[in-house]
Amino acid sequence: MRMFLLPIAALLTPASLLAETRPALSPPEIVAAAPASDWVRIAPADLLVMDLAPTAAGTPRRVVIQLLPAPFSQGWTGNIRKLAAARFWDGTAVVRVQDNYVTQWGDPDAEDKAKARKLPDGLAVMAESAYTVDQIDIQLAQFGEERTPESEAQWRKDLSSVKRAPPPDPRRNPDIIGTRTRSAPDGWHERDAYAPYVQFHAGWPLGTAGKKADARFWPVHCYGMVGAGRNMSPDTGTGAELYTVIGHAPRHLDRNIALVGRVIEGIEHLSSLPRGTGPLGFYETPQERTAITAVRLGTEFADLPGYEYLSTESTSFARYADARANRRDAFFIRPAGGADICNIPVPVRRAK
Amino acid sequence: MRMFLLPIAALLTPASLLAETRPALSPPEIVAAAPASDWVRIAPADLLVMDLAPTAAGTPRRVVIQLLPAPFSQGWTGNIRKLAAARFWDGTAVVRVQDNYVTQWGDPDAEDKAKARKLPDGLAVMAESAYTVDQIDIQLAQFGEERTPESEAQWRKDLSSVKRAPPPDPRRNPDIIGTRTRSAPDGWHERDAYAPYVQFHAGWPLGTAGKKADARFWPVHCYGMVGAGRNMSPDTGTGAELYTVIGHAPRHLDRNIALVGRVIEGIEHLSSLPRGTGPLGFYETPQERTAITAVRLGTEFADLPGYEYLSTESTSFARYADARANRRDAFFIRPAGGADICNIPVPVRRAK
Repeated sequence: MRMFLLPIAALLTPASLLAETRPALSPPEIVAAAPASDWVRIAPADLLVMDLAPTAAGTPRRVVIQLLPAPFSQGWTGNIRKLAAARFWDGTAVVRVQDNYVTQWGDPDAEDKAKARKLPDGLAVMAESAYTVDQIDIQLAQFGEERTPESEAQWRKDLSSVKRAPPPDPRRNPDIIGTRTRSAPDGWHERDAYAPYVQFHAGWPLGTAGKKADARFWPVHCYGMVGAGRNMSPDTGTGAELYTVIGHAPRHLDRNIALVGRVIEGIEHLSSLPRGTGPLGFYETPQERTAITAVRLGTEFADLPGYEYLSTESTSFARYADARANRRDAFFIRPAGGADICNIPVPVRRAK
Repeated sequence: MRMFLLPIAALLTPASLLAETRPALSPPEIVAAAPASDWVRIAPADLLVMDLAPTAAGTPRRVVIQLLPAPFSQGWTGNIRKLAAARFWDGTAVVRVQDNYVTQWGDPDAEDKAKARKLPDGLAVMAESAYTVDQIDIQLAQFGEERTPESEAQWRKDLSSVKRAPPPDPRRNPDIIGTRTRSAPDGWHERDAYAPYVQFHAGWPLGTAGKKADARFWPVHCYGMVGAGRNMSPDTGTGAELYTVIGHAPRHLDRNIALVGRVIEGIEHLSSLPRGTGPLGFYETPQERTAITAVRLGTEFADLPGYEYLSTESTSFARYADARANRRDAFFIRPAGGADICNIPVPVRRAK
């Protein structure tokens, strides 16, 4: 039987580690103290760099997006790579800003057949079922195997043999368990309104259908996540029209629209734009739109900063998530005893 | 024994009413179809009107805030009424805009004793315990009674005799219950990460410590809620420095800072401001701030529009909340089967 890493975020924090965190550090202090080994470099091939036209005062506006890794949304992210290579977005615009919801960009003339930009050849068309993947897909992708009946059977067998760490004893570890703490003593967050369970995996917030290792998974709509606009189902969108969340997490969109990544730098250039006054926050005149000058893959730059995220499988992340759920720093009077997954944003920074 | 209205939002929707909603209406369609009797007028005395300096293009920017009603946060809202009457905020500014968190305004020189504006006399100083109130307070306030040992004993007796409606039978009412629906079959939302229970009461989203009728209640930090900034505890803030939520609900602030109301019109004038580049999103130079020209109570205007909210005790609201949790309109493929309380914003509109 082959060895493999259990890919489920084990947010288990031994009491001995928690003891070190007193006097209580704030979440940013915990992140600042994380060792270099807890940070994971994001490959330039997974970065999409969007330059908006500078502000009236001449300030540049660059937005950096991290694309979702395999096995998530690969049809859409493949299309996005083709669209960037074809310079599809150069000269397009931000067309919609709806307060407490989304900022959306793409070809303003997409709905007008006579004026719409030509899409590059060879874009994939995805089925609705691609909105979710299952644990088997994740395992196969990690090891570069094809999905066949034989490989699937083997992985199901392997997964079924995984021994999960037992949950910590609440009597011995009251800080992290508490009476109402729901923050992931065994890597599973309970009390989510939209999914049976939620968890972090390889740096991303996910919903999941069950605790079994082969349960279905899907990325969730937290602040800054980027998705592919679409028309009515069965259309699933091509990836040419993108949006990002600029308000309270619209989790009802989970499994209804494809997420393709998240903004890791420059979200303020999209979230602070004037709100559109048309239906759904679309701008009513072309003059209101913000022009997009260029969208490029990270691999096209010689001088792009490196970016890294705090490994969601690290002890530092476990401490950080626990501190978000149980604020013990001086400002707070009553720790909440829990946090929803979108209130635990995964720390991302420029590499040092 | 006196009669009284059970003040707990009974979001119970009989199956006969649900049947009428097919073919499925979207949440805005349900709100648009609500009868006039389901809307509750907001008293001008509960409105705070803040005018920001017009934009560079001369566009006026007015923000309308509804103050929390009794028994919530009365010390702070009393102070806010005094501060508005004393013209305290005229000539102050928006001093902080932190992306995905808060916009904050007040006296930019508040921390500088030599330059700080003088606060009006007679402001109340609140204790931390004022962050929550209990059901007894709500009952007493509704009937204008003072809290005495005798009145409290009587109300506890009355409350204990309340018969709650039984939850609907899931087998007969699958649409609203479902297998994972957590949206309030009996008025209580489960699966909240921050409070044992959450519910709507008299138009406001509340957390509550238990299902018993005398349990403690508190307003929660959803998008657009307005709170009173403070320094380190035991300071609880005066109400002179205010903030509003412009990102994902920072529910960890619940019971740690006093909420005093919510923005009901013009939130975009606060959420689309440039983000501050100093620590915590404070502006680094006075030039970056947005000036506040005037803050007045609603009662000072002869021509202010009327505002009304959709009664959270109405059938229309029950339908709306259910539709937010179970999107059945054409765009959606998979209804979520639940919603967190901050993803069910209470509809507010100008009165017709």
